[in-house]
Amino acid sequence: MRHSDDDVGEDTGDIQTLIDLMSRLPGLGPRSARRAVLQLIQKRGQLLIPLANAMKTVGETARECLNCGNIGTADICKICLSEKRANGQICVVEDVADLWAMERALVFKGRYHVLGGTLSALDAIGPEDLRIPRLLDRITTENVSEVILALGATIDGQTTAHYIADHLPQITVTSLAQGVPIGGELDYLDDGTITAALNARRAL
Amino acid sequence: MRHSDDDVGEDTGDIQTLIDLMSRLPGLGPRSARRAVLQLIQKRGQLLIPLANAMKTVGETARECLNCGNIGTADICKICLSEKRANGQICVVEDVADLWAMERALVFKGRYHVLGGTLSALDAIGPEDLRIPRLLDRITTENVSEVILALGATIDGQTTAHYIADHLPQITVTSLAQGVPIGGELDYLDDGTITAALNARRAL
Repeated sequence: MRHSDDDVGEDTGDIQTLIDLMSRLPGLGPRSARRAVLQLIQKRGQLLIPLANAMKTVGETARECLNCGNIGTADICKICLSEKRANGQICVVEDVADLWAMERALVFKGRYHVLGGTLSALDAIGPEDLRIPRLLDRITTENVSEVILALGATIDGQTTAHYIADHLPQITVTSLAQGVPIGGELDYLDDGTITAALNARRAL
Repeated sequence: MRHSDDDVGEDTGDIQTLIDLMSRLPGLGPRSARRAVLQLIQKRGQLLIPLANAMKTVGETARECLNCGNIGTADICKICLSEKRANGQICVVEDVADLWAMERALVFKGRYHVLGGTLSALDAIGPEDLRIPRLLDRITTENVSEVILALGATIDGQTTAHYIADHLPQITVTSLAQGVPIGGELDYLDDGTITAALNARRAL
């Protein structure tokens, strides 16, 4: 993109700025950002203008729920406001992407708590850097009977799960089952997953 | 993303609209669009707001050069305006992405002509659907001495190249050399490229 003189083919100002910003999105590099920007310009009415407006709107309205950390357009998100979801269960997830994944499965009917990461000695992330104190508050104020830990099966995720389990009062604490994913073939699974699935085998 | 009742975790309005629009960009699917939108919301000040503004600006200013079809912010692009680039050479490319690729190589010092596609019997794209008549005009008005055809090594690209060469007046018409790409290993090249490279072999 850099050129020695100013007779460059592309506009080095606005369009290059847009390419640079787009290339900072996850999943887009410089090459795909250029392709995306060209497509945006060619689909100005259907894509570029609506996208600019949608970004502006989201930029003005999106915020974290003060209660659970979910992202929505109000101080308290729809799940926390819904009485139907006050069933005594709180599902603890690392981030909002995990919450969205749980919601897509349409299976969990309680509320969530988004930690905002995992404990990490390496990155010096302690309990007070996450939303753990707020979780302990909610246990008492929201009449919670079960905390479901839906944290990643990583070392940091499991460390965080154990920390939370140790600090919760006398309520049921569960975690997601580990095993063979639906549609998964044994041949492609790692040893750890196969070990976990075998150890947690069930009678048919 | 769809949920049977209205107690959804994510905002089904503005944020979902943004995800849907983002997923229409080349290189982004629904999953990566969700990741991108989450990152945008988390980097509101550094990324989301600047991106919305850059899109708005480009949406208002970007246009095709009336002369060559390049994309810029004025009716006539910087290359067509630059006297330094009026060296009698016109490089014919399929689209603006190809023009940008040529410019990045810093090797071509003339002007461009963006066809906007290739001739295609299958898609019923004829010469008048591309910027071919405008190219023929430019040959006479811009005192052109050489037309360099930088079209793709596809059937449609080569058909287009031959069509243009047949319709140009008595001037030099060249095309990009075909051969082994720099850094390319023979083992990974297709037969056609090896054949072209062998036929065009040069004395050392």
